[in-house]
Amino acid sequence: MKALIISADNFEDSELLYPYYRLLEENMEVDIASITKDKIRGKKGYEVEVDKSVGDIDPEEYDLLILPGGKAPARLREEKKVLEIAAHFVKNNKPVAAICHGPQILISAGLLKGKNATCYTSVAAEIKEGGANYDDRDVVVDGNIVTSRKPGDLPAFMREIFKLLKKKQ
Amino acid sequence: MKALIISADNFEDSELLYPYYRLLEENMEVDIASITKDKIRGKKGYEVEVDKSVGDIDPEEYDLLILPGGKAPARLREEKKVLEIAAHFVKNNKPVAAICHGPQILISAGLLKGKNATCYTSVAAEIKEGGANYDDRDVVVDGNIVTSRKPGDLPAFMREIFKLLKKKQ
Repeated sequence: MKALIISADNFEDSELLYPYYRLLEENMEVDIASITKDKIRGKKGYEVEVDKSVGDIDPEEYDLLILPGGKAPARLREEKKVLEIAAHFVKNNKPVAAICHGPQILISAGLLKGKNATCYTSVAAEIKEGGANYDDRDVVVDGNIVTSRKPGDLPAFMREIFKLLKKKQ
Repeated sequence: MKALIISADNFEDSELLYPYYRLLEENMEVDIASITKDKIRGKKGYEVEVDKSVGDIDPEEYDLLILPGGKAPARLREEKKVLEIAAHFVKNNKPVAAICHGPQILISAGLLKGKNATCYTSVAAEIKEGGANYDDRDVVVDGNIVTSRKPGDLPAFMREIFKLLKKKQ
């Protein structure tokens, strides 16, 4: 099992660190990708090493995609390759998990049409315009897409991600 | 299973948040205690609600004690009640887990004499003076005492905590 986290500067620190450490706790291999290979910095100041630029990512290698929130998704949704990676996961029935502003990437990739999903309060209008059935809950699972609202939802978010991964094994 | 996290202002944010969310992910009950019931603030700016003041803690109620790092332990080691709580856990063979500067509390309570333990680099001299066998590893387990060095050790730290809890069930 190999996971991919895509983020950029101004990520919501706990929404990147919690899933990252959590997957390592399960002895999973995890790559962090960003626009370039430069270190990225969270809103609260945590710095994270980047393993690969998104340009070098072959999504075939990965079994799970995680999209943390913060201001990073607003930048990442402008990158065609990021949208292609997200689309690859959905098309191939591989789990995609996005929290807070993370679902903005799925909206831009047109992947939430007709799906049940949640997101940060301020993103709700946008997710509905993107065709999703918005639900203000800690975690929403629709097929292989897991979405959550905010840092306090991280326990439920990871619980549902692991349930999906177990089904895939 | 009920867990107690004791911390104070200037905690190392991820060292409180990761264990806290992680225990909630397992559907455990978790209380956060501090010197008073006022909200506490981490070095990076995360704010956390406090459930109880340490003065109101009955350690008999809990099965696990977690001591995050940062600058909080330097303040907490001055509180007699905090040292008594830590001693209660060790005496009753209940798991105690301390990371980074967290072991300073165990040193002040005289609980690391003859024990294998680790801690943040700058605390190493102090832990040795306290009679511990210092080991520069991601996680050290001696009986019911789990210690780690820094945020990057959190996956190993929680993995060993859960191993201990499973043995107790």
